[in-house]
Formats: sequence, C-alpha cells, structure tokens
Amino acid sequence: MAAYSAGDKVQVKSKGETYTGVVSQESNSKNLLLRLDSGYSLGIKLGKGINVKVLSKSKQNINSNIEVKQNSELPKIAIISTGGTIASKVDYKTGAVSPISKPEELLALIPELTNIVNITKVSQPFAVFSEDMSSKEWQRLAKEVADELNKGNSGVIVTHGTDTLHYTAAALSFMLRNLSKPVAVIGGQRSSDRGSFDGALNLICGAYFTKSDIAEVAVIMHGTTEDNFCLVNKGTKVRKLHSSRRDAFRPINEIPLGRIWKDGTLEVLNKTYNKRSDKKVIADTKFEEKVALVKFYPGADPDILKYFIKKDYKGIIIEATGLGQVATSPTAKNKSWLPVIKEAIKKKVFIGFTSQTIYGRVDPYVYSSARTLQDAGVVFLEDMLSETAFVKLGWVLGHTKNPDEAKKFMLLNIAGEINSKLEPRGFLY
Amino acid sequence: MAAYSAGDKVQVKSKGETYTGVVSQESNSKNLLLRLDSGYSLGIKLGKGINVKVLSKSKQNINSNIEVKQNSELPKIAIISTGGTIASKVDYKTGAVSPISKPEELLALIPELTNIVNITKVSQPFAVFSEDMSSKEWQRLAKEVADELNKGNSGVIVTHGTDTLHYTAAALSFMLRNLSKPVAVIGGQRSSDRGSFDGALNLICGAYFTKSDIAEVAVIMHGTTEDNFCLVNKGTKVRKLHSSRRDAFRPINEIPLGRIWKDGTLEVLNKTYNKRSDKKVIADTKFEEKVALVKFYPGADPDILKYFIKKDYKGIIIEATGLGQVATSPTAKNKSWLPVIKEAIKKKVFIGFTSQTIYGRVDPYVYSSARTLQDAGVVFLEDMLSETAFVKLGWVLGHTKNPDEAKKFMLLNIAGEINSKLEPRGFLY
Repeated sequence: MAAYSAGDKVQVKSKGETYTGVVSQESNSKNLLLRLDSGYSLGIKLGKGINVKVLSKSKQNINSNIEVKQNSELPKIAIISTGGTIASKVDYKTGAVSPISKPEELLALIPELTNIVNITKVSQPFAVFSEDMSSKEWQRLAKEVADELNKGNSGVIVTHGTDTLHYTAAALSFMLRNLSKPVAVIGGQRSSDRGSFDGALNLICGAYFTKSDIAEVAVIMHGTTEDNFCLVNKGTKVRKLHSSRRDAFRPINEIPLGRIWKDGTLEVLNKTYNKRSDKKVIADTKFEEKVALVKFYPGADPDILKYFIKKDYKGIIIEATGLGQVATSPTAKNKSWLPVIKEAIKKKVFIGFTSQTIYGRVDPYVYSSARTLQDAGVVFLEDMLSETAFVKLGWVLGHTKNPDEAKKFMLLNIAGEINSKLEPRGFLY
Repeated sequence: MAAYSAGDKVQVKSKGETYTGVVSQESNSKNLLLRLDSGYSLGIKLGKGINVKVLSKSKQNINSNIEVKQNSELPKIAIISTGGTIASKVDYKTGAVSPISKPEELLALIPELTNIVNITKVSQPFAVFSEDMSSKEWQRLAKEVADELNKGNSGVIVTHGTDTLHYTAAALSFMLRNLSKPVAVIGGQRSSDRGSFDGALNLICGAYFTKSDIAEVAVIMHGTTEDNFCLVNKGTKVRKLHSSRRDAFRPINEIPLGRIWKDGTLEVLNKTYNKRSDKKVIADTKFEEKVALVKFYPGADPDILKYFIKKDYKGIIIEATGLGQVATSPTAKNKSWLPVIKEAIKKKVFIGFTSQTIYGRVDPYVYSSARTLQDAGVVFLEDMLSETAFVKLGWVLGHTKNPDEAKKFMLLNIAGEINSKLEPRGFLY
C-alpha cells in the first residue's frame, strides 16, 4: 500500500532529482503519476532508490469512487463532458487513444479544481470524438448548458474534442440567446496520461473563467506551449490553427478577450463582451441541416453547386479566394461559376462568400468581377470565419427561409462574429 | 511641358513639406506621381506653390513608348506577366480595378529595375485574374519559364494575381524539373496607382532574387506592412493568409528561405534550397485535371465523394480536421465517411488527407479512427498544405494512375513540400 493518496502533495527523490507535485488518481502502488507544479505530468515507477515524502495530505480525499466534493462557499458550476482527447487516455497495448469511461475520472486528475469552484454536476450527454459531431449534438448541448445556467450555476464548462471545437463554440454562441453567464469550451491536445497533458491547465483556466464577469461563450485553451496561461477567445472568432500544438487555438481578426493565468488572474485584453446578469438564458436551437461549406480552388467545376441544389440544400458558404473571388471569366479550361450561382440564387439557395485566406475581410467593392457576383445575389460575409459562417447559416436558415431576411441576419453581428474594423494585432496573434 | 521625365529623381516642395522620389511613368504635365524612397507612391497636383527640382536625370530615358533599356553588364532575366492586381490600375470613373494593357507599363512605374537586372523580355502569354487560372495556364507558364531559363536568362520573374498565386507557385515547383536558376513569383495586393502599391518593392526584390544562388521557385512578397523587405518563401510552403494586407503571404510549417532588403541584401534564413547550376530545365507539365479539393465539416454528407466518383475523378484531397479526422462513428444525424471512402479507393480514386488546421502535420497513429482510414487506403500527406497537395496530386496523377506509385510519389518530398521535422518558428511566422 502506498503511503499517499490522490490529491496529496508529495516530494519525490529519484536518481538525484527532486520533483514536487500532486498525486493523480491514476497512480497505483507500482506507478506514481504526479502532476508537477509546471502543469506537466510525470510518471515514476516506484521501487528501490525512489523516496516519496508527503508534504500535505489531500483535503479533497478524492478516492477511486470519485465523488465530487462540494464546497458551498465557492460559486456553483456544472461540467458537461462530450468526449474528445481531453476525456481520453492511451491504451498502452495498442497505442491508440480511447475515451475514459466516466467524466469524473478527469476531475480526479485535477483535484485542485474543487478549490476553485463548487462543481454541482458532471454530466456526459453523449461521448463522441469531435469529428463525429453534428448539429444534433450542438442542439442537445445548447439545451443542457441553458438548463444548467438557469438552475443557478454561475457558469458552465463544456469539455470537447479539439478538432471541431471551434464549430461547436460558434454553434453555442448563436444558440444561447440572452447569455448572461460565462460558458467555457475547453479541450485537450494531449490525452490525460501524457506528460504534456494540457487539459489540466485548460480546465483550471475554464473554472476561473466561469467565475468571471464575461457572459460569453469562450474557447479557453493554452496561450503558449508553456503551462503559463490560457487565452480566452470569443467562440465565433477562434480557430484551430495547428494539428498538434497545445497553443493551436488562435483568435482570427480579433484579439483575445483576455488571458487567464495559472493562479487565476484574469487579464482583460479586449472589452467587447457582455457582462454577467440575471437574465434567463434561452436555448434557441432551430437549425437547418441542409447547409454546406464548399472550398473553391483553381479549375474547380461549378457543377458541384448543382449537386447541392439537387439535394435540396438551402444554403452554401463558398470559401472563395482573396477578397471574395471565384472564377467568373472562363479561360480555355476553366468554367465560370457565375451562371450556376445565379441558378442557385434563383432557386432561393443562400450563397454566402467567405475567404480562404482565413484572416481579413471579403470585399466586393475592389474588383468588378466580385461586384457582378454581389449583383447576382451573393452575400459577402465581411470578416467572418468560414466555419462560423457555416454554423451561423444553419442557425439563421433554421429561423427563416426568406432570402432578404436571411441576408439581413447573416450581415448582422449577433455573437461577435463580425468586426466592423479589424485590429492589426488580430493577424497571426 | 514638364521639366522632368519618368525615372528622374526629383525633390518636390508642397505646402511646407519636402518629398524626394522617382517620377513614375503615369505622371503628366498636370499630375506628378512620385515613388518615394519609402516605397510608397504620392500623387501631387502641379500648379501654384508646388516647386519641383530635378536632382538627377533618368539614365534609362524610359519614355511613353516604353522601350525596355538593356544593360549588358547586368544579369539577363525575363519577366512573364500573367495579369492580376500587380498589373492593374483603378478606373477612377467606376472605382473598379482593371488590367493594364501592356506589361511594360508596369516597368515604367519602376525605372530603377533596369539598374538591377538586364530585362531581355517582357511577355504576357495570357492576362487573367488569378481566380480564373487553371492547370492549362500553369502548363503554359511552366513551358515559358523553362524556355526563358534555357535561353540563357539568369532567372525569371513571374507576375501574378495574388488570390491563387500560391497554387501557381506550387504548380511551377513541381513542373519545373532540374530547376537550376531562380524563379520569383510575385504579385501585388494593391494596384499600381495606389499610394500603398506594393508591387514595386516586390518586383525589385524579385529582381534581386533572380541574381541569387537559390535555384527554387519562390514567392517574393512583402515581409511586413512596411516597405522594408520581402520574404523569400518556398513555392510549396507558402499561403495567402490575409485578404488584403501587403504581408499576406506567410510560410507554413517552414521558415522563409530568406529576406531580401530594399537595397538588395539577401539574408538567408533557411539553407534547404538547391543551388544555381547549368542544368537544362525541363518543363514536365503532364497534369490530370480530374482532381478535387474537398473540405470536411461537421455533419458533411459523404455522398459528395460519390459525385466526384461518378464524374470520373481520379483523385481527391480531403481537408480533414486536426490530425486527419473525418466522421467515422455515425451519430444520430451524422454519416460515416468510411464506406464511401472505401468505395472510392476500390474504384482507384486516390484519397489523400491534409489538415484544415493549416499548420501542423496529419498523423494516423494517434487515433484508432484515423488508423482505420489509413488501413482502408487513405494516404496521410504529412505536413503538406492542402493547396500544394491538390496541385501535386494533379501533377502526380498526370504521370501515373497506379495507386501504389501515386502514393509513393505523394509521400516523396519532390519540391520541398514535405518537412520531416517541423521548425517551431514555422507557426504563425
């Protein structure tokens, strides 16, 4: 039997090195998994020459039954887990990452969370990897978040796989009307049993965020490759920009709302957010599933739009080039997109343009070809991210099929998705 | 009659301010267009209170007939103009940007170019906006570049619209085999009559690049929003990342080969390039047009792949999420992409995965779902850009339809498109 238990702060001497950290739930009598003060995890094989000294016993007494301790003096929050890497561990036999079965297991890895907030509930309405998410899951999630906030929680943390986390954050941003409390959407780029597990700091920052005054859906992920702070990014202005780095989530055409440091300090960088209030949150989840996102490329055949028209799609976001261009002057091989776009619009299919440059704004007023497209009815979606525009279009068309109304709402800034003026620091932040 | 001519260096006193710059070709007896030393252009209405002093007369004597003066002591180069903003001017009546009719007009704006290189030829094989380009234009361009290099030019400058400039740069990178001399692909984000015209510095940097030892296709565009230096980026590792900024072209998963400063100084940052030699350049332009680029998104219907299979496409690059994921575990609404991907591969359609995160690498070895896709025959294309992968696939399938051979070539680093190890500075450079 080990002389320590999960949550204990210990000092370990091994091979001339000294490590100080908190014992994590995954430790057993043979292997000790320590979460170091740096945020990194360290696995130590116990045995000869390894000296473990308990510096302080866990106050939380998190044991293998994983009961979440409640501290009624702290603000109440709920955690909604949806699966993904943050709720995953590696199967060391196959090397594959698989979901952990209970979301509470995750909490056991980060016992200090219960010193920051009073976790009233940890639920898992569904557990899917984020690439398998669809609008159905966004709707269930929005309803569950609204329920928890209206039940008196100060905020909600949603844990999510990172691959489509920004799509879900955008969906929650539009679906949660009258949002009066913070909603932190967090994930992990590394699974919980890896030394570089980032979910711990992200969860801690997320917990601090739920205590803040910022009544927004925000993505809270590592700001750098270090475990020093998280960025608080608006759910509609953030994108996964790297497949593996822990600081992969970057603001686009925007600076972050703020930084949350490891000690809980919130450094506000951008004051364009709604403040906490007592308004009842409404989950307005109507969503038109027949929306598509199509990336244009040189030589692309415009007939692809006919495929979507035939399948009765109601709206298409085209990721155009530059300021919002697609082929309109047919060359030897190329085909103009203009006739098919006109056909789609005639059949009341909404056509919106964003830019595949990621950063910047589309603008139909520079080139005459783009003005021709605009005259044909294409809606140029300002500085909106393609992913956000796709999600917003499904939500808007869930509410109206009238083309003029849809255009009006697509160009109306509903959840911070449009900036009338771009902040130069919002490029490559 | 004005006392100055295009190319003269003049000092202008106006309203208490003094400006020094070179008179551009677009000046006339009423309006003086100066290219200032800062690189910016300034339009001055001549008349009372405006004092113009000629500091030095143009040696080039560029006149309105626009004959390109040759200086046989300088290295010979050719300029191939393809249209785009760099070869455009604004119609002040409509506000629209339209192409300038002769590429030589562009040179007249930058008379000092003839002091850097000996321009043997300015040709314009076609003039299309870059969104209208297709593989046919890439093929013509590659042949023309190879011809000029094999005729004894030291290098070639290709001017191009910026929207798909990176696709064309990638196409030239693959099509120009045995490339033994520098090929600069440059564009302008602002038209030549705007104060913020960036094409001048880009052309000057491009000219200096053609004198260098770097036998690569490189994109030479502004490094910052200032007119201080250009970045030299590998044609396969660069992307337009902003719709309007002059420093929009950024390296992805790579650091630039170097910087070229306004005075011609080449600062090498990355030595992974081929050196100048005497090898004969081969234009290997075979290209399979039936290739597509498809971006995955949450809830995306995999039937889109059936559309391409039916249309007899030979290869599809799927911009997957994160490390290379698409829906494989069907949820309530979602459909798995696995069966349709298997069907495509069975029909010998090449399926390659890149990441829509832009930065980073795809990796099938982290999640079991990705391994299932790999086992089904999906090729995970390392750290290749989606745009580069799309171009490369057309080029590879132009040479072989054998799936194993195509896979081998797609995973072989042919023109710097794959880095085995990512340089951390290559993120958000």
